Amino acid sequence: MAKELTSRETDYAKWYNDLVIKADLAENSGVRGCMVIKPYGYSIWEKIQAELDRKFKETGHVNAYFPLFIPKSYLSKEAAHVEGFAKECAVVTHYRLKNSPDKKGVVVDEEAKLEEELIVRPTSETIIWDTYKNWIQSYRDLPLLINQWANVVRWEMRTRLFLRTAEFLWQEGHTAHATREEAIAEAEQMLNVYADFVENFMAIPVIKGVKSPNERFAGAEETYCIEAMMQDGKALQAGTSHFLGQNFAKAFDVKFANREGREEYVWATSWGVSTRLIGALIMTHSDDNGLVLPPKLAPIQVVIVPIYRGKEDFENVDVVARGIFENLKKAGITVKYDDRDTHKPGWKFNEYELKGVPIRIAIGPKDVENNQVEIARRDTLQKFTVSQIGLTDYIKILLEEIQQNIFEKARKFRDSMITRADTWDEFVQILETKGGFISAHWDGTPETEEKIKELTKATIRCIPLDAQPEEGKCILTGKPSSKRVFFARAY
Amino acid sequence: MAKELTSRETDYAKWYNDLVIKADLAENSGVRGCMVIKPYGYSIWEKIQAELDRKFKETGHVNAYFPLFIPKSYLSKEAAHVEGFAKECAVVTHYRLKNSPDKKGVVVDEEAKLEEELIVRPTSETIIWDTYKNWIQSYRDLPLLINQWANVVRWEMRTRLFLRTAEFLWQEGHTAHATREEAIAEAEQMLNVYADFVENFMAIPVIKGVKSPNERFAGAEETYCIEAMMQDGKALQAGTSHFLGQNFAKAFDVKFANREGREEYVWATSWGVSTRLIGALIMTHSDDNGLVLPPKLAPIQVVIVPIYRGKEDFENVDVVARGIFENLKKAGITVKYDDRDTHKPGWKFNEYELKGVPIRIAIGPKDVENNQVEIARRDTLQKFTVSQIGLTDYIKILLEEIQQNIFEKARKFRDSMITRADTWDEFVQILETKGGFISAHWDGTPETEEKIKELTKATIRCIPLDAQPEEGKCILTGKPSSKRVFFARAY
Repeated sequence: MAKELTSRETDYAKWYNDLVIKADLAENSGVRGCMVIKPYGYSIWEKIQAELDRKFKETGHVNAYFPLFIPKSYLSKEAAHVEGFAKECAVVTHYRLKNSPDKKGVVVDEEAKLEEELIVRPTSETIIWDTYKNWIQSYRDLPLLINQWANVVRWEMRTRLFLRTAEFLWQEGHTAHATREEAIAEAEQMLNVYADFVENFMAIPVIKGVKSPNERFAGAEETYCIEAMMQDGKALQAGTSHFLGQNFAKAFDVKFANREGREEYVWATSWGVSTRLIGALIMTHSDDNGLVLPPKLAPIQVVIVPIYRGKEDFENVDVVARGIFENLKKAGITVKYDDRDTHKPGWKFNEYELKGVPIRIAIGPKDVENNQVEIARRDTLQKFTVSQIGLTDYIKILLEEIQQNIFEKARKFRDSMITRADTWDEFVQILETKGGFISAHWDGTPETEEKIKELTKATIRCIPLDAQPEEGKCILTGKPSSKRVFFARAY
Repeated sequence: MAKELTSRETDYAKWYNDLVIKADLAENSGVRGCMVIKPYGYSIWEKIQAELDRKFKETGHVNAYFPLFIPKSYLSKEAAHVEGFAKECAVVTHYRLKNSPDKKGVVVDEEAKLEEELIVRPTSETIIWDTYKNWIQSYRDLPLLINQWANVVRWEMRTRLFLRTAEFLWQEGHTAHATREEAIAEAEQMLNVYADFVENFMAIPVIKGVKSPNERFAGAEETYCIEAMMQDGKALQAGTSHFLGQNFAKAFDVKFANREGREEYVWATSWGVSTRLIGALIMTHSDDNGLVLPPKLAPIQVVIVPIYRGKEDFENVDVVARGIFENLKKAGITVKYDDRDTHKPGWKFNEYELKGVPIRIAIGPKDVENNQVEIARRDTLQKFTVSQIGLTDYIKILLEEIQQNIFEKARKFRDSMITRADTWDEFVQILETKGGFISAHWDGTPETEEKIKELTKATIRCIPLDAQPEEGKCILTGKPSSKRVFFARAY
């Protein structure tokens, strides 16, 4: 296995792309901007799906499925929404009738134009609220707590595997409520569900906050977000949860009779995370040797590699290795026994390092003699010998320790990448040298935010939920400000 | 709950549509031919997915994800394939640039034309084989056993909820093999996986067979299928598994070096089932009172309804009902306790009957006194009283019995709907009076099959795998035939 991974220091973007390809996570397809998610990458997505789906159901949500296509006119019904998504939609204008040779044998396409053009969904608020109109009459029909697992299309000009692709997979929750307070509580609850999942399963520390008006979802009154910090000092938005007010209910005329019999517009939220999370996972933990996966998301948690020379060696090793394999499996650990004789142990070691398998167990004739195994931790790259006695319990504890260690390492790095800036010079210098989150004062106007973006490419990633009141002056204009916000360059 | 379900006898098609709507399974959307799968319907699809996915993985398959869009030129590379799908494709010709008011305030659409038009996938053989080209070099890369869960679009002119919709959900397996024999074995294995699932989980008896050349998948050398019989005497294709020969490997130039180092084209299969299965489920088991669901697929297996007048009554009943609920839940049974005071027991009984919940437990003050409950079986509509002692074990056994009974009932009906015809008059008479499968001789030519279809709307559903050699004469032409095939009108 030739690894030849570009180092992060040499070229971070190339390192990322190389790693995605070489670790068999995904690749570009023949369709511009669309990726193929390969089996190893998809198995990580399946783990993400399973755990999130469990959390959604635990909080009372059910799944449903809405159409891929949205009539063009629907998108225009909510003014801010159409403005936000108009630039990046794929439009279906024809359906094909035939494609057959004419009398001279030339293939002629005949197509029929659609009466109304259809948009391939970039997000489903409009088609869903058009549907909810018929589902909601009374307060008894509320709340409506629905999630959808789906593909969406946004015609991005510059794409990168997982981080920004024309088509991507995601889940989108769309809920309807009788009161403003209940809708806000739902949006906040789902933000917490995301934060809990991303921190405790993906081992990625996040900052919870709200977006500035400039960065809000098109059609939202408030966008809650979780922001993560990548190893190159750029931020990555890992999930958003929107309080949509009554905007979509008004656009689609969705009213309900309240307990007093009066008609009111329904309150809404939507929230989503996507295959982009896999990009965040890679860029938070991995190193120049390959992927580093937290045990809770690793498709293979433990791999066992037998070391032997001849047939007799193999038989002695095999019987012990197989016993360990069975014990780990019985304990609910996802374990692979790689007894292929087509590849050498060294090749296998590199392969599983590249693929981020948290624990590697190697076992050779000496280990059999001494009733021990060799263990290699992917996160620390440490190797050590442990007894075969009590091995299953040892591995269980080690997996937990690795999960914790990967998170702590990322948290320490993230914390080290939060810097305060009190002058414009400081602000620019931090951005140019170190990157990361810059905690700074802002005068609260969209114009200033826009100007800062123009000058530095940094945007307000979020106004942290735990921001403390603090009198200060805007980093750019010097106008008064009452709390710090987090700026960063971002993916 | 006003049921007002049209009876099957009055109007079978209307009964079906009413039932899908009233049982909250699905509804038509604002997009022509596209349905919304409602939460109750989607929860059945989730059960189907979970069990099939388990079976696919058990047989060595992994999941991946390929693009929604297919360049138009890919579709043309396999001649039979493009012929088969050309009539029903949605084409993306534009992506949207802006949608903004001009100087006079009029909204102007500006769009950019794509360099190459994209098809929304009707099936993914072409994009997948274009990808496999880069994944397969040597026999060591084979077999490749991949499945995808996805949405597909076929621009059908006449659509019916679940049975035929422009967009539908499905899984599509695409495998690559080193030899013809191995590919055929895979196609047959997956047919058996489908048959086992449909019979043992969905309780729908099927006939395994192969399609006549006319009915083969576009691009296949052999199409294996499972065929089910609906209550109105029409057949429904419940799943297909295709042996694709080397057709797609040749179209996309996918070769591998065999063990001797010689280059050969790769052998292929594909296989799929879709949300159509939910249509088959409904039409096989349900009755004029609503859905009948086999316990293994029912989103709610048991519902408990408390019967009471005053508050004291309720408290007495509630404590016992809740105990039963907890016991059933602990035993792994999906149980719902409907203690809502907003609806009367009669309303609830109708509701759960309509939704096909296999077992209803009612418990009132008298039952509490006598240490018993009332049980109603959805499949037989029988009601009876049983002791609370040993209730959990009783329910477990009853669920199995119901699963078995629903299957047996459907099997008996299906068997009664297989009729032999030896003359054309018999053939036509059976079709007009009784419908069902007609076992008859056919001369083996596409022309005769086409003619029979023109005259009667019946097609060859399959040539049963267990058909015995039997000398006979074609039902239409009188030409010699060596075995009977199954004709039927079909969904």
